[in-house]
Amino acid sequence: MALTNHKFLLAARPVGMPKHTDWTYVEGPVGEPKEGEFLVRMLYISLDPAMRGWINDVRSYVPPVGIGEVMRALGIGIVTASRNPRFQVDDHVFGPFGMQEYAISDGQRVNKLDPKAAPLPKYLSVLGMPGMTAYFGLLDTGQPKSGETVVVSAAAGAVGAVVGQIAKIQGCRAVGIAGGADKCRYIEHDLGFDAAIDYKSEDVRASLQKHCPDGIHVYFDNVGGTILEAALANLARGARIVICGAISQYNNTGAMTGPRNYMSLLVNRSAMKGMLVFDYADRFAQAGEQMAAWIAAGKLKSREHIVEGLATFPETLLKLFTGENQGKLMLKVG
Amino acid sequence: MALTNHKFLLAARPVGMPKHTDWTYVEGPVGEPKEGEFLVRMLYISLDPAMRGWINDVRSYVPPVGIGEVMRALGIGIVTASRNPRFQVDDHVFGPFGMQEYAISDGQRVNKLDPKAAPLPKYLSVLGMPGMTAYFGLLDTGQPKSGETVVVSAAAGAVGAVVGQIAKIQGCRAVGIAGGADKCRYIEHDLGFDAAIDYKSEDVRASLQKHCPDGIHVYFDNVGGTILEAALANLARGARIVICGAISQYNNTGAMTGPRNYMSLLVNRSAMKGMLVFDYADRFAQAGEQMAAWIAAGKLKSREHIVEGLATFPETLLKLFTGENQGKLMLKVG
Repeated sequence: MALTNHKFLLAARPVGMPKHTDWTYVEGPVGEPKEGEFLVRMLYISLDPAMRGWINDVRSYVPPVGIGEVMRALGIGIVTASRNPRFQVDDHVFGPFGMQEYAISDGQRVNKLDPKAAPLPKYLSVLGMPGMTAYFGLLDTGQPKSGETVVVSAAAGAVGAVVGQIAKIQGCRAVGIAGGADKCRYIEHDLGFDAAIDYKSEDVRASLQKHCPDGIHVYFDNVGGTILEAALANLARGARIVICGAISQYNNTGAMTGPRNYMSLLVNRSAMKGMLVFDYADRFAQAGEQMAAWIAAGKLKSREHIVEGLATFPETLLKLFTGENQGKLMLKVG
Repeated sequence: MALTNHKFLLAARPVGMPKHTDWTYVEGPVGEPKEGEFLVRMLYISLDPAMRGWINDVRSYVPPVGIGEVMRALGIGIVTASRNPRFQVDDHVFGPFGMQEYAISDGQRVNKLDPKAAPLPKYLSVLGMPGMTAYFGLLDTGQPKSGETVVVSAAAGAVGAVVGQIAKIQGCRAVGIAGGADKCRYIEHDLGFDAAIDYKSEDVRASLQKHCPDGIHVYFDNVGGTILEAALANLARGARIVICGAISQYNNTGAMTGPRNYMSLLVNRSAMKGMLVFDYADRFAQAGEQMAAWIAAGKLKSREHIVEGLATFPETLLKLFTGENQGKLMLKVG
């Protein structure tokens, strides 16, 4: 019996927020894996801020998704047919399978998962790329020392929530910036941040000054824009800014805004460093073990925001940019 | 016989380019050194881009010059009277003596110079703060490795010219950005840079791409603005940007411009770091010996742009911002 696949193709390069008409939703037959390939039925597909960058026609760390191509996406699925000796039917796998119900893969950049070790959505969240980004971005790029103050933006998000909790584990003071009272309550009361700043109702620059009396030692930036400027205005001497994302800027129709007060780096002898999680692939397993141990010890919590149905992709993606999601956003497929 | 002093006081905080009316030129008697103090007759006074920042009413690495205070300036003079056992009459001294003909000092942050070891203007130039800034900014903050490409802006200036020459000494490829054919010829033909880019007549972004086919490994920034953006657009992976100055921005009447494409730091896993020369004070002597050896070996050249007369200060200062100076700008006093 022939299986039917549904998938989203990129129809047009979005200007500003991606619109429905920037995507084509296509139905078609599921193909047959060739020698060395296998077929995956998708279970969960990750929605990430980085997706907005992948669909711009600009040089970046990966080539842009082409017009008419399946939208790039990381996801988790189960192998349903295989002509690749590394992957067996019923294996759970993680990889760049795209925004579709079924994918054919040659196994490149695909890893097996143990569904008994953790609930599957955790592998797209705290045990997946967001968790790894937080782990290496904070520890390797940010180099926090015990007693220092770590500030993170988008602090209730998939990366930010982990950054703050690892900062606490390292003996740092953790201050989170998030949008709205609910998210602020969550990071302060549920995750144990020392302070939360609601950028929707507070003057972030003034609140950072209040909550970071000795200045910011590590600022982990997921948002860019005026919040990055507020952090630059409050650096301690020798501070490290980790540039992980700039979600406030991704849907700009004009140029991005650069931090106007970047000369604070000179005044405070500080550094601003970019990081990309893929550079740490050879240490993911080791980091995953450490994270799993922290989860087991109750020191590291996460929440996932799961939306049902591949077809909701165009509107569900926008939750990332409006801040509507509560935790790691993903689609449950099928 | 009573001596007469002339000095410049800050009269008003400049908006944009400093005007004549932002200064007061005052004549008055020279004071008497008290116990522990000494009197200095100024010979050369340094004019530096950083001066523009010192007269803004903003928090920085030093407090701003107050309205009615003598303008802050580094200079070289000769001791003419002393009640401080460390300093004798006829000693040549370097220190923060201010924009005036005579200064009384308690010896703090004052060092003696040997007028026989080098011509005095060199102590405000390649053997002074600009040279030290280049030395530590490039070697310590930029960490260039042999074979890498080093790009420097304001490359014909007091700092930039030294950066490029030290880059060559380290086995790097040196590319300089400067304004006008004369300056470009100077750095390429007289100083031995591998390439010069004239920002007044070339598309800097395109020229950087041409002259740095493997990307920029170290970018030493003295100017900010669109030239910083052009460098960010051409980074090699793992590049280091040294933030030393932003002279293109110092006379902005509105906010400074931040680098709109700073996310290139993420794409290229690069770092942007601020540095201040004063942090390296305990290594100045050692660096000075190294620089003197390079000068003696003909590997390190410098030129000084000396303008006669303290009274010319208000208009001479502007040469820094219009790019009219040819080499390290200073006043010859008396």
